[in-house]
Amino acid sequence: MADLSALSPEQRAAELAHQREVHTEFKAAGLTLDMSRGKPCAQQLDLSTPLLSILQSADDCFGEGGLDCRNYGVIDGIPEAKRLMAMLLDAEPDDVFVFGNASLTIMHDAIARCLDYGCLGSTPWSQLPRVKFICPVPGYDRHFAILEQFGIEMLPVPMRADGPDMDAVEQLAAEDAHVKGIWCVPRFSNPSGAVYSDAVVRRLASMSCAADDFRIFWDNAYCVHDLDDAAAEEERVLDIGIACREAGTPDRYLKFASTSKITFPGAGVAAMACSAANLAEAKRLCGAQMIGHDKLNQLRHARFLPDAAALREHMRAHAAILRPKFELVQRKLREGLGDTGIASWTDPRGGYFVSFDGLPGTAARTVALAKDAGVVLTGAGATWPYGRDPEDRNIRIAPTMPPLADLDLALDIFICCAKIAALETLR
Amino acid sequence: MADLSALSPEQRAAELAHQREVHTEFKAAGLTLDMSRGKPCAQQLDLSTPLLSILQSADDCFGEGGLDCRNYGVIDGIPEAKRLMAMLLDAEPDDVFVFGNASLTIMHDAIARCLDYGCLGSTPWSQLPRVKFICPVPGYDRHFAILEQFGIEMLPVPMRADGPDMDAVEQLAAEDAHVKGIWCVPRFSNPSGAVYSDAVVRRLASMSCAADDFRIFWDNAYCVHDLDDAAAEEERVLDIGIACREAGTPDRYLKFASTSKITFPGAGVAAMACSAANLAEAKRLCGAQMIGHDKLNQLRHARFLPDAAALREHMRAHAAILRPKFELVQRKLREGLGDTGIASWTDPRGGYFVSFDGLPGTAARTVALAKDAGVVLTGAGATWPYGRDPEDRNIRIAPTMPPLADLDLALDIFICCAKIAALETLR
Repeated sequence: MADLSALSPEQRAAELAHQREVHTEFKAAGLTLDMSRGKPCAQQLDLSTPLLSILQSADDCFGEGGLDCRNYGVIDGIPEAKRLMAMLLDAEPDDVFVFGNASLTIMHDAIARCLDYGCLGSTPWSQLPRVKFICPVPGYDRHFAILEQFGIEMLPVPMRADGPDMDAVEQLAAEDAHVKGIWCVPRFSNPSGAVYSDAVVRRLASMSCAADDFRIFWDNAYCVHDLDDAAAEEERVLDIGIACREAGTPDRYLKFASTSKITFPGAGVAAMACSAANLAEAKRLCGAQMIGHDKLNQLRHARFLPDAAALREHMRAHAAILRPKFELVQRKLREGLGDTGIASWTDPRGGYFVSFDGLPGTAARTVALAKDAGVVLTGAGATWPYGRDPEDRNIRIAPTMPPLADLDLALDIFICCAKIAALETLR
Repeated sequence: MADLSALSPEQRAAELAHQREVHTEFKAAGLTLDMSRGKPCAQQLDLSTPLLSILQSADDCFGEGGLDCRNYGVIDGIPEAKRLMAMLLDAEPDDVFVFGNASLTIMHDAIARCLDYGCLGSTPWSQLPRVKFICPVPGYDRHFAILEQFGIEMLPVPMRADGPDMDAVEQLAAEDAHVKGIWCVPRFSNPSGAVYSDAVVRRLASMSCAADDFRIFWDNAYCVHDLDDAAAEEERVLDIGIACREAGTPDRYLKFASTSKITFPGAGVAAMACSAANLAEAKRLCGAQMIGHDKLNQLRHARFLPDAAALREHMRAHAAILRPKFELVQRKLREGLGDTGIASWTDPRGGYFVSFDGLPGTAARTVALAKDAGVVLTGAGATWPYGRDPEDRNIRIAPTMPPLADLDLALDIFICCAKIAALETLR
């Protein structure tokens, strides 16, 4: 298809009329397709079926050193689960605190502790007149929702192909002591799929911060979620822990990961890794909140994924399911919108999303049109703080959940809607 | 044994010397026995072994309405788990919010939400100059630890055989708007085993509170934890929800329960029940913290305990294991200390503890002596706010975990230590 802005007004009107006819046909078909959230599909979940029955008898429930994982205790996780999560977190097992099923909860609660108690002796953030966080955009809506609920002001900075715009980040961190943290999804960032370069990681670790208790919230949600072996080899991210220790800022980072997109999203294991000082403080403060998380589920996971080779093999099986979906997204968008001049999108090598940018002022309209035709997309604006994309152009495409045939159809509808929204704007 | 205070000084000195010899022998034996925490024993845990393998295949993971419990979502719990937890909570399933493995975490987080956001539009508690809680004593150390960590002032009131001293509770609640809540363990209270009378429940529900957002934290940890069928029939507690609705205070209560002492303490299911308004607020606020808890574990529990009859039968099996232990405690204490005039203790019909009162000034010494002889007891003072028992006399006895033979020996040692501490005081 030709560049839509290069068409004559008459040609554009004809194309708009045509796309509206197509859209009307889609609507008449009464479809219900969901591309809204980064959920694994049923076929992926089936890969972890052995996890269900890996503990069968009472004898199976005893961990290393004879620990009865059925009973109370062990607030920071059993040793075998610490080792598993250390693989995901680029950490030593001793630096790992294993929690329940959701890294989102760990991150929320970590910020709550900063607000209530400060960090390693600093003033509790809640006692400050204001608290601000740096938010690379487009970003993850649930990260933003935590900050919004706590009343923490969000400062968007642009996300690049190699991580956040570090000039902007450094300036914000250096000039304002109320700037207390930054969200980072360092590998296959949500939604762009960007992978942080070593230079970006080093700048984050070494930058001058007006706040002594500045914290990098390092959400490594897609740490092993590559679409192929080449990506696993080539898209390595420098560990923020190493970078911070080298930069003399060992307490600056908190790393998070989970098995949500490795085993079962609703029933996985999540963990945090950080410096010994941060870990000791977290253990002390969490002692009032919990006696221990589900150690049986920790044990199930440790036995199901006993080493790096097992983990790698398991993630290869995920990739085999997901790769055709991501390839389909690229092919359909290229064929449908490639030469139209109305859109650009990312082509990630892992993770769960493709970030799509339409013409300014078209994202909300595209999402609404798609909904009319039975395709639920992530809400327009969701990738921005407060749900407000100032240019109204970014849409997160989540291709993992629908079966291939559904995804194919959903993309046809999406492309049609993006064209309509663009043509209405160009008119 | 005779009343120790009625003995002559010489007789007391001789008895003290004798008990010290006994104590020395115990020490020499190098024992390690633990009566410190209310943990189920291995035999109890074995009762729930079928839970481990109740979900075997991918097909087993689908709940009512075809919900795939492996995937993300359903923040407030699956319907079948709501029904199970409603049985424990004396609630309707619609009033239940199912969480993860620990009611302690739910209670901690519920208080955190009151502090951060207030209740149903009230001023956030953290913005008040101070917040106070009524704490019946002796009580549960982990309840007190939550308040202490949040800087909430604790106001002890005496615990009676039928619940807290309601004259004291009513006065505190009525006169000070900073008094925001009360801890209640209404059935087989920790540690006394007291069961709240209907009159106490009605007074809690209907009392005048200076704080409009006063909350009763109703921790029904031992809701079905009877030592025999007669107790299950006779020791019924009026539901605080019914009482509050009748009293026109429908939002005053938050009820909590878990399967920690029904199935696996480390891997159970916990839930909260409350008014529709409180539930809606909790769901809204929790949306930033969690996507959903472990629905596979919820499904396991719902299938393992599908109805009231199954639950009752399962708790009977627990009682059969625990009853001899509680009977042993009563027999040994009666035989060892019954006529000495130095101690009194409760005789609960359920729950996990016996509350022991020695002579004033002897609890810390008794616990220290026991530790010297290899018996770990709950720390003296733990049953009081800030760990400070003003009379230094209360000790929580937790007889559930040790095998009967160990418990027998531990009680011998405990009785010896209680006598030594008393005789030293009487000297």
